Amino acid sequence: MVKINPQRLKTSLTELADLARTPEGINRMTYTKAFWDSCKYVTQLMEDAGMTVRSNAVGNVVGTYPGKTQRKLVIGSHIDSVPNGGMFDGCLGVMAAIEAIHTLHEQGIQLEHSVDVVAWAEEEGVVISGLMGSLAYCGLPLTPIQLEKIGDYHITLEDIQACKVQEPVDYSLELHIEQGGVLDQTKEDIGIVTAIVALKRYRVVIEGVANHAGTTPMPLREDALVKAAAIFQRMSTLVQEVDPEMVGTIGHVEIEPNAVNVVPGKVSMIWEFRAVKEESLEIAFERLKGEFQDIIASITPIQYERAYHMDETAMEVIEQASKELGLRTRKMPSGAGHDTMCLAQITRPGMIFVPSVGGISHSCKEWTHWEDVTNGANVLVNALLKLDQQSQ
Amino acid sequence: MVKINPQRLKTSLTELADLARTPEGINRMTYTKAFWDSCKYVTQLMEDAGMTVRSNAVGNVVGTYPGKTQRKLVIGSHIDSVPNGGMFDGCLGVMAAIEAIHTLHEQGIQLEHSVDVVAWAEEEGVVISGLMGSLAYCGLPLTPIQLEKIGDYHITLEDIQACKVQEPVDYSLELHIEQGGVLDQTKEDIGIVTAIVALKRYRVVIEGVANHAGTTPMPLREDALVKAAAIFQRMSTLVQEVDPEMVGTIGHVEIEPNAVNVVPGKVSMIWEFRAVKEESLEIAFERLKGEFQDIIASITPIQYERAYHMDETAMEVIEQASKELGLRTRKMPSGAGHDTMCLAQITRPGMIFVPSVGGISHSCKEWTHWEDVTNGANVLVNALLKLDQQSQ
Repeated sequence: MVKINPQRLKTSLTELADLARTPEGINRMTYTKAFWDSCKYVTQLMEDAGMTVRSNAVGNVVGTYPGKTQRKLVIGSHIDSVPNGGMFDGCLGVMAAIEAIHTLHEQGIQLEHSVDVVAWAEEEGVVISGLMGSLAYCGLPLTPIQLEKIGDYHITLEDIQACKVQEPVDYSLELHIEQGGVLDQTKEDIGIVTAIVALKRYRVVIEGVANHAGTTPMPLREDALVKAAAIFQRMSTLVQEVDPEMVGTIGHVEIEPNAVNVVPGKVSMIWEFRAVKEESLEIAFERLKGEFQDIIASITPIQYERAYHMDETAMEVIEQASKELGLRTRKMPSGAGHDTMCLAQITRPGMIFVPSVGGISHSCKEWTHWEDVTNGANVLVNALLKLDQQSQ
Repeated sequence: MVKINPQRLKTSLTELADLARTPEGINRMTYTKAFWDSCKYVTQLMEDAGMTVRSNAVGNVVGTYPGKTQRKLVIGSHIDSVPNGGMFDGCLGVMAAIEAIHTLHEQGIQLEHSVDVVAWAEEEGVVISGLMGSLAYCGLPLTPIQLEKIGDYHITLEDIQACKVQEPVDYSLELHIEQGGVLDQTKEDIGIVTAIVALKRYRVVIEGVANHAGTTPMPLREDALVKAAAIFQRMSTLVQEVDPEMVGTIGHVEIEPNAVNVVPGKVSMIWEFRAVKEESLEIAFERLKGEFQDIIASITPIQYERAYHMDETAMEVIEQASKELGLRTRKMPSGAGHDTMCLAQITRPGMIFVPSVGGISHSCKEWTHWEDVTNGANVLVNALLKLDQQSQ
């Protein structure tokens, strides 16, 4: 077993956080000064770890650790943050990947594959829109919004094309905090991601009649909020009946006119379904729609993301590495999106989760214990070594 | 029976509306150009009807029709509107009062009492805050907000004091559209208002835990909106159990963070109760609070208005006048506030309602059939004649 240097990893994560720390949390939105300062810091760490580094206006930082062949493995994550975010979301996967290579480099270990360690830009999508760095790295088409906005940041189409990885990639691995509370609650050390869930969103409108709250007797009312309330309640029970592993959320609601003295006349809400099994999305949606068809004025699909399944071999080596390190594992889906969604379209992907305290993320309260940080990095480096030995 | 001139009343209501009409509805907010133009129009109509008129920077227009004694009756309403309001709300009561006096004047009828016909300013409270004109007319204290803001409209405390009616007022009458759908549904002609309801409002906060909607399994969620939904539903059934004549409304709701991909962490809402019986407010509030005490994080009382009961004699003369005119009446509370809330503090008040089509008000869709306009004005003038005969 190779073991990484826990103190060095803690130092690099802390120093990276210090470049973007505010009293409200980490603020490293893509293309801010804190972001570019952090890119410089990442570049320096990569060079110290024995890598050659390339970067351009897109903001991806790619360190290459040369191997014996032209075949490639990719490890990494992102360093951009949401406003007032946490210090581990994305950064853990980048710093642990650098630490993994640093460890191999100082032990004189050369791999069969060359390894790209990547800090992908604009994963969170706060500035332009999500996953832009990994789309560019994987040579996948940018979205229309991305194509429209890149000029504002002095990014050319040539810059985007220059990001594309040239060699065939055999496997990718991404270490990430869970951002949910499952591992923290079950006291397991490592999550072996089975899939990044599929997602569907719909805008649903319920109509009533807006009327004076003083002059409209209760029996004459058609209160859109009272109608909608039944849906708010039913969503959570229904998805559990359809598929115990799926989730359904009504997080965004608009009430019109939303005035203290007016009976609500209209409620629009977003239904969000996420599941590994794509058919669960459809079943839950159809059932909820069916139960409330009498009160629904309109339904508009607004977003769909397919599921991305992790590679069996990648999952196996993560499990073996964890076992050899004496760590308890749990196979689980990822409910959140990650750069690995892009990697999954060009190679065999794997993802490693470590616990998030209280399941909190996208917040200054986000935390992962240092022991779990070390565990995750050790699983990453040993899983990488095992993938390097796979024959293609 | 005296009968007003329906065509003249229709003309004056229409011409008044034309001074403030926009494609979105009537816009005659106090102290706008449309408001002052309308005051001039009202003044002219009052003079044509045989009244002497006084007015000042407050915006009340007071026409006095002299009587045989110094005792006084007051009739009127307001001409200021909400943004994009209707042409009858308030204006009906002013124009019908002028028409009533015009009818008496042209028939050479002098009353025992002198009659003040008043268009009170700023009833709606859109510009400064509600009922300001009638508070000033009745010599009641202005609210702190009103005292703070009047200077912005070049209104002095002397202007306010000059509004105060000097003579004792024996009765007041206000004709108004119902602004609810009761009369329209029951096909009754005239509502005899029994009371303007009491009102209590509370801010109620429900707390959950805001969490990532993708990564938080259903059993680990504490969704504030799901909790709040039970209250949204229960409010409407509970108030009907407590008092079939009261109303309870949750019209304003804030959800945090109200983001499509975050489980709602906090819901704050306003509970509004209105009832003629003040004890019903308390019973309904305590019962709703009791049923949901486990999930309520905080409750803050934010507003209280007492009930104002109409005078028995005033109600009787309205009923008699209606009967003599062959109109069907219904005794009913007013769920909305009116200038009569101020008059009730200095005299014996009465209120007459006519039907609102579909119960719609505060909207360009507000409508009252011309036949009902005529009925209301005829009830007003005949009830006025009957009150004039009451011995004190």
